[in-house]
Amino acid sequence: MGKAAKLKPQERKGLVIVITGPGKGKTTAALGMALRAVGHHMKVCIIQFMKGELYTGEWDGIKKLGEQVELIAMGKGFYRPHEDSDRFAEHRKRAQEALGLAREKMVSGEFDILILDEVNNALHLGLVDLAQVLMLIRRKPAQVHLIFTGRNAHPEIVSLADTVSEIMDVKHAHARGIPPQPGIDY
Amino acid sequence: MGKAAKLKPQERKGLVIVITGPGKGKTTAALGMALRAVGHHMKVCIIQFMKGELYTGEWDGIKKLGEQVELIAMGKGFYRPHEDSDRFAEHRKRAQEALGLAREKMVSGEFDILILDEVNNALHLGLVDLAQVLMLIRRKPAQVHLIFTGRNAHPEIVSLADTVSEIMDVKHAHARGIPPQPGIDY
Repeated sequence: MGKAAKLKPQERKGLVIVITGPGKGKTTAALGMALRAVGHHMKVCIIQFMKGELYTGEWDGIKKLGEQVELIAMGKGFYRPHEDSDRFAEHRKRAQEALGLAREKMVSGEFDILILDEVNNALHLGLVDLAQVLMLIRRKPAQVHLIFTGRNAHPEIVSLADTVSEIMDVKHAHARGIPPQPGIDY
Repeated sequence: MGKAAKLKPQERKGLVIVITGPGKGKTTAALGMALRAVGHHMKVCIIQFMKGELYTGEWDGIKKLGEQVELIAMGKGFYRPHEDSDRFAEHRKRAQEALGLAREKMVSGEFDILILDEVNNALHLGLVDLAQVLMLIRRKPAQVHLIFTGRNAHPEIVSLADTVSEIMDVKHAHARGIPPQPGIDY
């Protein structure tokens, strides 16, 4: 593979990318972009909005990539709508902190790619507000790629984004009672 | 993150997973699974059926993950249908070698996850045969996860698979003339 031709980088443009839909592979696709970016000597920051209480393999996997990738799990785990209002307040507080951190990292000049994992879902659940996310997009430095993952991406975000993938769940092992598998599901 | 609870591994079952569709994120999702698996102390082999002539960031990104992930780019690059028959023969030869290697790696007992990147596409283009891929699935050791990526997954493979994600291209920056971006597209 050492002798492979390199595509000449053309105009470098920071994109807004949304990976949404009910199917498996949203966070994993964002992690794959981080891995790929490392090969291009880029720096990546991943902020996880809904994860933080249950171990997931990427935490240790990312560490192996060294200083080029920073992963911060800010969430309080999964939140389901209609939980009591104390739980909601707690989740919203953490998501708001995650968003504040995202703003800082985005404008720090340190990172080429900022991945906001599960932010679509956080917005859908009211843990962050549409106006806040729109403001983040407006302030994005021209060269920075901003990647939003999670189900239920907001139509206004989809409309502003450069690239949007929707992952459909054609079928899933869970539906046949197969429990989550390490390395595959978490 | 050190104090996060770990999900108790329940029944371990090797799955057949297909990631297909026209949208962005198929290979990247598979790479993300490799990254995640590393965090679970699993071993992963990635065989790329259609890549090998143009540099892609995952080659160096994967190296950072160390000995837990082996990536082999066997392809002769992208092949378009209706190219001349010499080109076809050359591509088919390489894809056949890739499949032979996949068989070896799958039964070697060395790997927990085997990723056949772009194999769906290779099958669609006639570079490998349906019967060959079906045989591979039949011979899969019970604990090994087998992941197929690429557009145009064959309906029989979809029907046999445990989990199938289809990535839809809601929109793509390319369509507006934005050239491929390192770290994002390759």
